Amino acid sequence: MEAQEQEEQEQLVTPWEVSAEKGGKIDYDKLIDKFGCQRLDQSLVDRVAGLTGRSPHVFLRRGVFFAHRDFSDILDAYEKGKKFYLYTGRGPSSEALHLGHLVPFMFTKYLQDAFKVPLVIQLTDDEKCMWKNLTVEESQRLARENAKDIIACGFDVSRTFIFSDFDYVGGSFYKNMVKIAKCVTYNKVVGIFGFSGEDHIGKVSFPPVQAAPSFPSSFPHLFSVKDDLRCLIPCAIDQDPYFRMTRDVAPRIGYHKPALIESSFFPALQGETGKMSASDPNSAIYVTDSGKDIKNKINKYAFSGGQDSIENHRKYGANLEEYGAGRLLTGEVKKRLIEVLTEMVERHRRARAVATDEMVEAFMAIRPLPNMFN
Amino acid sequence: MEAQEQEEQEQLVTPWEVSAEKGGKIDYDKLIDKFGCQRLDQSLVDRVAGLTGRSPHVFLRRGVFFAHRDFSDILDAYEKGKKFYLYTGRGPSSEALHLGHLVPFMFTKYLQDAFKVPLVIQLTDDEKCMWKNLTVEESQRLARENAKDIIACGFDVSRTFIFSDFDYVGGSFYKNMVKIAKCVTYNKVVGIFGFSGEDHIGKVSFPPVQAAPSFPSSFPHLFSVKDDLRCLIPCAIDQDPYFRMTRDVAPRIGYHKPALIESSFFPALQGETGKMSASDPNSAIYVTDSGKDIKNKINKYAFSGGQDSIENHRKYGANLEEYGAGRLLTGEVKKRLIEVLTEMVERHRRARAVATDEMVEAFMAIRPLPNMFN
Repeated sequence: MEAQEQEEQEQLVTPWEVSAEKGGKIDYDKLIDKFGCQRLDQSLVDRVAGLTGRSPHVFLRRGVFFAHRDFSDILDAYEKGKKFYLYTGRGPSSEALHLGHLVPFMFTKYLQDAFKVPLVIQLTDDEKCMWKNLTVEESQRLARENAKDIIACGFDVSRTFIFSDFDYVGGSFYKNMVKIAKCVTYNKVVGIFGFSGEDHIGKVSFPPVQAAPSFPSSFPHLFSVKDDLRCLIPCAIDQDPYFRMTRDVAPRIGYHKPALIESSFFPALQGETGKMSASDPNSAIYVTDSGKDIKNKINKYAFSGGQDSIENHRKYGANLEEYGAGRLLTGEVKKRLIEVLTEMVERHRRARAVATDEMVEAFMAIRPLPNMFN
Repeated sequence: MEAQEQEEQEQLVTPWEVSAEKGGKIDYDKLIDKFGCQRLDQSLVDRVAGLTGRSPHVFLRRGVFFAHRDFSDILDAYEKGKKFYLYTGRGPSSEALHLGHLVPFMFTKYLQDAFKVPLVIQLTDDEKCMWKNLTVEESQRLARENAKDIIACGFDVSRTFIFSDFDYVGGSFYKNMVKIAKCVTYNKVVGIFGFSGEDHIGKVSFPPVQAAPSFPSSFPHLFSVKDDLRCLIPCAIDQDPYFRMTRDVAPRIGYHKPALIESSFFPALQGETGKMSASDPNSAIYVTDSGKDIKNKINKYAFSGGQDSIENHRKYGANLEEYGAGRLLTGEVKKRLIEVLTEMVERHRRARAVATDEMVEAFMAIRPLPNMFN
C-alpha cells in the first residue's frame, strides 16, 4: 500500500500493517463491521466466569479481548461437556519481544488454565524467512529464542505443543495445506491480503500454512478424528484475515470452522494511533528493557494528553475526556505505570532466564500430551 | 488457453497440454529455440558411449532424447571422477500407465546402470490431488500403484529412492521449497505456466515442490553437502518450464543448476500431431492392454500414411516420404509393431506382477542408499 493511498485511507489493519486514520486512533467498531466479526459483550464474559468458576481475566474485564467469531458456540459445546483446543502463534521476526507480543500469550495461558484444554503454538519461521528476508537458519534461531519468551508466560508442558513450521510442516499438516490451497483462488488471496504480481509466490503459498493448525487432523500425534474437537484461536484482530479465509474453507473440506477471540492492539507509547511495533523501538516496552529503560521511555514518549505548550495547557487544559476514560497518563499515572510494567518485565525476565534449551525441546517434542484434558 | 486462441497458435507445449500446429506435427526445432535448450548432437552421444563403455541406449541413437541443458557439464565432471545423481518423476493421475509414460523411466534405468549413480523419483500426488481434483487418499493410492509400474522397469533398490510428496514434503525439502518460492514472483509463474487469477493458490504453490528435488540438500538421508553433487534430470520436454524456473533460481540460493536431458513426446497412435494421452484411450497403448487390445488399436488407429480412399491411394500412393524416413506404418510394419509392443507390454506385466507392496515400501523407505555409487 503506497503512503499516498494511505493518507486517503481511514485506517489500515492487515497482518503486516496497522495504522489509524490520519490524526485519529484505531476505530474498533468500524473494524468489527468491516471484518464481520462480533463484539464480545458482558453476557459472554459472565458466561466465561460461570463456566470456569473463576474471575474472568483482566483482558476480558477491561475489553482488551473485545471481538469474537463463534466463541459462544465453543462455550455451548463446553457446557455440554465437549472440550476444545486452543491455537495461537507468533511470527519470530525479532530477538526480543515487547509487551504487545505477550498479550495473546498471557491471555491464552489464562484460557488454558481456566478451561483445562490443550494448546498448540505455531512459530511461523517460514513466514518470517520469506517476508523479512531472513535466512532459514536465522528464522529458526529466532523461533527458538521466542519460544523461551513464550514458555516464560507459564504454559503447562503437559498440555502445550509448540512447533516451528520449518520443523513441523509435512505429513497430515501438509495434506491439510494442500486441501486448503485447493479451495482458495489467487484472486481471493489478493482480495484478502492485498498481494501484488511482484510479490513472490512464497507469500501466496503461506496462508494455508497459518490456516492448517485450525484443524485437529493437522496434529495426528495429539488429536484423533473421533475426538471431533473444535478449535478456539486467541489472537490480535490483525490476524482475522487469515481465519476469515480458514473459516470460509473449513466446511468445504469437512472440518469445523475455528472460533476466534480477538484483542485490540497494545497501543504504542505515543498513543492509540498505532500499535507497539518492533520497527519503532521507542513505541514499545521490551521484555529485555531495564527498569531504567522503562522509566525513560514512559516519561519521554508515553502519550499523556497534555497540550504541546505551557500556554496551550493553561488555556485548554489537558485532554480530560481521555483522562476520564482512564486512558490519559499524567505524571502520577506514569509513575504507577512504570512500577507495574517494571514488575511485569522483571517477572518475565526471571521466568525467561530459567527457560532452557532443554525446556524448548520438551515443549517442541512431537509427542502425545499426557494431561491434555486434565 | 482457450480453444480459439489455440487455433491461431502454432503449437502449444506446457506441462499440462501438448498439441501441434493445426494439421501439422510437433516442431521440435522450434521448441528448442523457444525454450532455449540445446540439441543433443551425435558428438554427445559418442561421448556417452565412450564414458560408459557401452552402446548408447536406442533412445539416444534414435534421437528420442534429443535436447539437453548442460548435459555436457555433467559429462565433463563425470570424466574427472565426479559423480552426479538422477532425478525424474511422475504425476500419478491414472491407474494404468501407457507406453509414453514408460519412456523416461526406461531411459533413466539405462542412465542409472550405465553411470552407476543414485536416483530419486518424485511421485507428485499433491499435484494430481490439486489439478485433477482427486482426494488426498486417492492420489496417494495412485502414487503407490504407479510406483509398482516404475519398479517394474527394473530399478536397483540399492540405488533408488522413490518418494511421494504427501509422504515426504517437510524438513530440508520444505526449507528448499521456501528458499525457491522466495525467488519467484507471481508474475514470473504466470509467464512460465500461464496461471490465471481464478486458479487456486495450490497451483501457484506447486512449482517449488517440483523444483526442490533438483537440489541434493532436499535429501539429507541420501546426500551430504560435502558431496557437492550435481543433478541430471531425464524428462519429456514438456517439463522444461519447471526446470527453466529451477535453473534461474539455483545460483541465487547457492546451488548448482540442474542439468536436463529431454525427450520428444511418444506420439499418439494417430500420428505426431500429439502425444499419447491418458485422456484419449485410443491414442495410447497401455501397459495393461492385452495382446488382442494392442493388435486392434494398432490396426484400427495407428497412422499409416495411406490415403483416405482406395481411389486416392491408387492415384497419389502412400505418403512415401514419411515411409522413407521410417515413420510410416504399412500393414507389414504394423504387424512387426504389434509383435514388438506385445512383447514389451508382456514383459512389463510380468515384472509388475511381482512388484509387491513390500517392494514399494522398500523403495520408498527413508534410508541411506547402500550402493549409491557402486
